[in-house]
Amino acid sequence: MAKPSTALPAVIVLGQPTLFNIYGEQLSHKFQFLKPWESSLPLEQFISTHAQSVQAMISSPKDFVGKISSSLFCLLPSLRVIVTSSAGVNHIDLLECRRRGISVANAVSVFSEDVADFAVGLLIDVLRKISVADRFVKNGLWPLHGDFPLCSKVGGRKVGIVGLGSIGLKVAKRLEAFGCIISYQSRKKKPVSYPFYPDVHELATKCDVLVICCALTEQTRHLINKEVLLALGKGGVIINIARGSVINEMELVQCLVQREIAGAGLDVFENEPNVPEDLFSLDNVVLTRHVAACTENSFRDLYELISGNLEAFFLNKPLLSPVLDD
Amino acid sequence: MAKPSTALPAVIVLGQPTLFNIYGEQLSHKFQFLKPWESSLPLEQFISTHAQSVQAMISSPKDFVGKISSSLFCLLPSLRVIVTSSAGVNHIDLLECRRRGISVANAVSVFSEDVADFAVGLLIDVLRKISVADRFVKNGLWPLHGDFPLCSKVGGRKVGIVGLGSIGLKVAKRLEAFGCIISYQSRKKKPVSYPFYPDVHELATKCDVLVICCALTEQTRHLINKEVLLALGKGGVIINIARGSVINEMELVQCLVQREIAGAGLDVFENEPNVPEDLFSLDNVVLTRHVAACTENSFRDLYELISGNLEAFFLNKPLLSPVLDD
Repeated sequence: MAKPSTALPAVIVLGQPTLFNIYGEQLSHKFQFLKPWESSLPLEQFISTHAQSVQAMISSPKDFVGKISSSLFCLLPSLRVIVTSSAGVNHIDLLECRRRGISVANAVSVFSEDVADFAVGLLIDVLRKISVADRFVKNGLWPLHGDFPLCSKVGGRKVGIVGLGSIGLKVAKRLEAFGCIISYQSRKKKPVSYPFYPDVHELATKCDVLVICCALTEQTRHLINKEVLLALGKGGVIINIARGSVINEMELVQCLVQREIAGAGLDVFENEPNVPEDLFSLDNVVLTRHVAACTENSFRDLYELISGNLEAFFLNKPLLSPVLDD
Repeated sequence: MAKPSTALPAVIVLGQPTLFNIYGEQLSHKFQFLKPWESSLPLEQFISTHAQSVQAMISSPKDFVGKISSSLFCLLPSLRVIVTSSAGVNHIDLLECRRRGISVANAVSVFSEDVADFAVGLLIDVLRKISVADRFVKNGLWPLHGDFPLCSKVGGRKVGIVGLGSIGLKVAKRLEAFGCIISYQSRKKKPVSYPFYPDVHELATKCDVLVICCALTEQTRHLINKEVLLALGKGGVIINIARGSVINEMELVQCLVQREIAGAGLDVFENEPNVPEDLFSLDNVVLTRHVAACTENSFRDLYELISGNLEAFFLNKPLLSPVLDD
C-alpha cells in the first residue's frame, strides 16, 4: 500500500466498490482513501484508529453488510457526506442522515441505459431460449437431438413495467420497437401515454410479462408475491433488474418450480451472492450475477460522477447528484 | 399412418419441415401428403412408385440434402409448384424452375420479426455476456468468485447491417431504440437515412458490429471472409442469423480463436447440424441451433401461408407469395 498523502482530503470507503478495481489509481490521485477491507482491524476499531474525524464516505450497497445508520454515524461524528456508487439508496438511513445534516449523493441515472439494455436482453433470452440453445449447441446435442422447442414471440407481448423511472422508461422505449404493448405501475401517474395501473396485482392480470424497475423501499419490499405471480399466470414471465427483495424470492421459486409462471430472468436476488439452487436446473430461468449496470462505459461515467461529487463537497459547492428525500 | 384420402390433392414433401410436427394434423385435412421420410424406399424409388404424377411440392431447406434442381425435376415431370417453408430459396434452382414453368412460393417475411428479435437478443447476449453469466451462476460460482468482467455497452455501437431487406430493416429499427448508430451494405441503395456502403469491407472498417441479414446467393457466399473480419477489428462482433455460408466459417473460427475479433453470435452454420467444436469453449461466442425463426406465432403464420399457397394453386388462383426471380 502506497503511503497516503496527508495533503489529500480523507474519504472512508465502505464495502469494496467494484469501481475501485478499475479507477482506484485515478481516484487515489485526488483523495486519501481509508479502506477498512485492507486492514486487519474490525470496522469499529479501524474507524476509531484511522477515520474518526473523516467527513466524507463512499459506500456500495453490494458488499457492505447491513444498513448505514445510527450506530455507524455515532462512530463518525464529523461525517457530512455519503456518496454511494449505486442508483438505489436503500442501504442508507436517509431520515437519520437528514436529522444529522449528512448529505447523500447517488449514481442517479448513470446506469439506466445499461440496466434497461440488460432487462431487454434477459427478456429476449427467456422468451427465445438463447442461453438454453447456447448450452444445447455447446454440449454437442444438436446432431443428436434434432428437435428444439418452439419459443414465444417478443412482439405483441403485453409488458407491465413496475416502476416507471429512468430505467423503466428506457425499457419501455426499447420494447416498443419490438412491438410490445406497454403499461405500468408506479406510485404516481406519469406524463406518458402508456396505461397506468396503481395496483401491481391489477397490472399483472393485464400483462404477459412484468419487468421490475422500481427502487427497493419499505413500500416495495415483497411487492411481487405469490398472488401477483398467480395473477400473471402460467404464460407469465418476470424480469428483475431492480433489487432481489422487491420479489418474495421463496414464493417466486415455488411458482417457477411448479410452473405456475412460464419463466424468469433474474439479475438480482434477496441474499446475494447466494441464489436459490432450485433454480439452477430450470431451463425457463436465466440467472445473472447483478451485472446489469456493469459496463466499461457506465463505470467511467460513475468514476467521473463520484469524483465530481467529492470534489464539490470539499470545495463547498453543491453536490452534482444530491438525493432528495421527499 | 392413417389411410390417405385419394379425394384430396397430392403434395410431395421434401425434407421434413418442422411445421409438420405441429400442423401436420390440420394440413392433412386439406391435402394428401407424400412423405418420403416415412417410407423405407430410396427417394427416387419412392417418387416413381407414389409420386410421379404429383403437381405440388412442399420443401424445407433445413433438412433436405442437396439442391432441388434438374435431376429431381426429371423424376417429377408433372411438378408445377414448389412451396418452401423458408424465406430463403437458395436450395431451389430458380432458373431451372422458370425454364420448366414451375412456380415457387416462399415464406416471404413471415419470420422477419422473430429473426430480427433474435439477432438483437444475440447481440445483447454477446456484448453483455448474459449466457456466460447464466452459466456462472448456475455452476454455483458466484459465492466463490466475486469478480465478473465488465461488459460493453450496447448504445453508441456502430452497427453495420449486411443486407437491408425485411429482416435487416427490423434489426435496424430495434437497435436504433438502444442508441446504436446504423449503417448498411446492400446490392442497391435503399430509401432510408442510414449511411450506405456498397462494399462490405468498407462497412466493416466503419463499424463495431456486423449483423448478417442477407440472402445466401452465389454473390454472397463467403462474402464475410478473413479480410472483412480483420477490417472489423479486435473490438468487433459478428451476428449471423442469415445462412452459415455467407461467412467463411473456417476463417471466422480462426479469427475468434485468435481473438482477432471480440465475439460472435451465430444461429446458422455452414454444415448444420455440425458446429465447429473449437467454438464450444469460447465465452465470447453464443451459439444457437438455427432457431431465430422458430416461434409458435411464426409457425402459425407459416401454416396459413403454405396452406393458402397450395389452395390457391389447386384452385388455379395466383399464389399468395410467389418468388419473383429478377
